[in-house]
Amino acid sequence: MHRFFEQLRILEERLVEMGGTVRLSIQKSIRCLVERNEDFAHQVIQTENLVNQLEIQIDDLAVTLIVLNQPVATDVRLIIAALKINTDLERTGDLAVNIAQRALALIQEPPLEPDVPIPRIAGRVQEMVENSISAFIQRDPDEARRVLLADDEVDRLRTSLYEDLARRMEGDGHAVRRALGTMTIVRNLERIADHATNIAEDVIFVVRGIDVQRRKESR
Amino acid sequence: MHRFFEQLRILEERLVEMGGTVRLSIQKSIRCLVERNEDFAHQVIQTENLVNQLEIQIDDLAVTLIVLNQPVATDVRLIIAALKINTDLERTGDLAVNIAQRALALIQEPPLEPDVPIPRIAGRVQEMVENSISAFIQRDPDEARRVLLADDEVDRLRTSLYEDLARRMEGDGHAVRRALGTMTIVRNLERIADHATNIAEDVIFVVRGIDVQRRKESR
Repeated sequence: MHRFFEQLRILEERLVEMGGTVRLSIQKSIRCLVERNEDFAHQVIQTENLVNQLEIQIDDLAVTLIVLNQPVATDVRLIIAALKINTDLERTGDLAVNIAQRALALIQEPPLEPDVPIPRIAGRVQEMVENSISAFIQRDPDEARRVLLADDEVDRLRTSLYEDLARRMEGDGHAVRRALGTMTIVRNLERIADHATNIAEDVIFVVRGIDVQRRKESR
Repeated sequence: MHRFFEQLRILEERLVEMGGTVRLSIQKSIRCLVERNEDFAHQVIQTENLVNQLEIQIDDLAVTLIVLNQPVATDVRLIIAALKINTDLERTGDLAVNIAQRALALIQEPPLEPDVPIPRIAGRVQEMVENSISAFIQRDPDEARRVLLADDEVDRLRTSLYEDLARRMEGDGHAVRRALGTMTIVRNLERIADHATNIAEDVIFVVRGIDVQRRKESR
């Protein structure tokens, strides 16, 4: 049983590492756009391989945990949650690459103001990714619920920015391509926020299961 | 061991049921748009609950499979693949609901031609969902690879339709909102195609693992 928790801790450390990596990728993809600096985008694209390797490592650790320890149902659910988080983080990494590629194209053209809200949305989304993983490591449903609230804020910011961009397009045909490119970046940020939300929902679900189990055991 | 494969068969039947359900939801969400009939969209929205219940059932079946049978690594990987497919199908169901909601809004306005390619893209995407699950049930990497090829075709169709819509927006400010709504529907179809692609990639990965294992055992 001691060995099980030791191995679980290693798996969790890998998840934290992966979370930190994709969080940095989000940040760099947006810096490429805002600072109009291609280097950041290339760094993001180079990270994709590392993220894919981490995903495979984490999947392997989970299989080993199950096969060697024959865990009880509660622990199997915990491992399954870790696997789902793993998939969400890998796809988050892909979305950061999408943003980086789109940013590379956009900075070839004159900037389309206002793109001020984008760093703000990106900052909230990065926090959501970080906090959703932290909620899992701490088994903290309250932190997970704060991630769900942050998602509502991201949705509001996105809706308002979309409305601005749609009006720009209606008034100026020359702005259409750049506004569509900006929308694509915002949409990718929104999808990352959805992945963080999925992680937070998994945390709430799995912690509830652990609590139910503990109550049964303490009877 | 007999019981393990019996339980695995039940889990696979549920995945097929879920796949059929979300495939029908995709079809109905597009019929709402094309036939300008709200009933189809409401049917899709009502199905969301059933899809969520199927997801929980399949997760539970997977936990039971692991806890009661203490499966070997190859079988654990098979169960993990089933769980990932489960998540992809649940999110596909959510995306069909997104399409239905957007279609409900779009049919309140005069149609924006050409939306002819949308049923064609939707048809390909439905096939991808069906074939990716079939590839898993049959452990057939060739069928999985055909899903990956179909995804390339969906990407081409989408790129061409986006180009048409962007030109429409550049030329006519009054078309912007409807063109954006149409893009949203196509983008949701593309995301469903991505989920089918994820399933197909999982199938290729897990079947390769089974083959490697069988070669080891036959030595």
